[in-house]
Amino acid sequence: MIVDQVVGTVTLVYDHHVRLLNEKLTAIQHDFHRAILSTLHVHLDHDNCLEVLVVRGKSAEVRKVADALISTKGVKHGRLTITTSGAELK
Amino acid sequence: MIVDQVVGTVTLVYDHHVRLLNEKLTAIQHDFHRAILSTLHVHLDHDNCLEVLVVRGKSAEVRKVADALISTKGVKHGRLTITTSGAELK
Amino acid sequence: MIVDQVVGTVTLVYDHHVRLLNEKLTAIQHDFHRAILSTLHVHLDHDNCLEVLVVRGKSAEVRKVADALISTKGVKHGRLTITTSGAELK
Amino acid sequence: MIVDQVVGTVTLVYDHHVRLLNEKLTAIQHDFHRAILSTLHVHLDHDNCLEVLVVRGKSAEVRKVADALISTKGVKHGRLTITTSGAELK
Repeated sequence: MIVDQVVGTVTLVYDHHVRLLNEKLTAIQHDFHRAILSTLHVHLDHDNCLEVLVVRGKSAEVRKVADALISTKGVKHGRLTITTSGAELK
Repeated sequence: MIVDQVVGTVTLVYDHHVRLLNEKLTAIQHDFHRAILSTLHVHLDHDNCLEVLVVRGKSAEVRKVADALISTKGVKHGRLTITTSGAELK
Repeated sequence: MIVDQVVGTVTLVYDHHVRLLNEKLTAIQHDFHRAILSTLHVHLDHDNCLEVLVVRGKSAEVRKVADALISTKGVKHGRLTITTSGAELK
Repeated sequence: MIVDQVVGTVTLVYDHHVRLLNEKLTAIQHDFHRAILSTLHVHLDHDNCLEVLVVRGKSAEVRKVADALISTKGVKHGRLTITTSGAELK
């Protein structure tokens, strides 16, 4: 792993009934597609979704995608967790 | 596990640039949210996404959600795999 | 969603070469299988794995499974994120 | 995407109580870690797990990892689905 990279997760909870919210979140994810390794989507109940993105990249880039997602109108809860850096993993 | 249930996966490949496609797929998934345990989304490249849904329910219901997703205009590849039934797992 | 439930994620980074570590983590996950909705596993590099578990249940139970996983010898990084409670989502 | 690549999924259902089975499957996945983009694990019930691997690579390599996983003793159901090739996605 490259030393200046960080790895983390972005957790989002949102109501899929909010108009165009899912499309906005998808558009953001594609703008930053190089930083997003994978996304897991769980249907919590009829209204609410939980999405976890596994992100990897330069710290600034990872924070930027997290901020863009979490600040999207309609996202109820959002949290970035930087779990590790490449340097620590050595 | 209930005996008349099946478990399977639905695999979709699509281009996220197709207008409103992601929103359509999300709407279908929420209509059938009881049958979908979890969805994994992987960004293949700048255009293409692969999505795998883990589905569980009565055979007819699982086939219905798979058909709805796979037949959505803009989906390039779709495949339902019924991996097992509750009866077989006993 | 039941009001006294919490929803969250547990993120783990570990080296899969540590003897029996994966089997220990799997055993813990099955002991608490009712609280774990889904797990996403990403291979970061030849040595390191990142695993994200989506957990739901009573706060005490969710914390118990997170503690058990994070404190397992060989886990390099572990973090529980409680993203939301059922009450907040109403 | 590179033209001679294929993308697919491998779906496995197995009983986690089978001795060392999970460790064997994990070891295989790490031997082929370059071909595996992500793995989703769902606990179906107290005994059975469903695992879906998103695989990408040369056709021969993808088939090799699928065969190795599906033929592991204790795997109840296994299926490789080649969903697309890079060439088709152009």
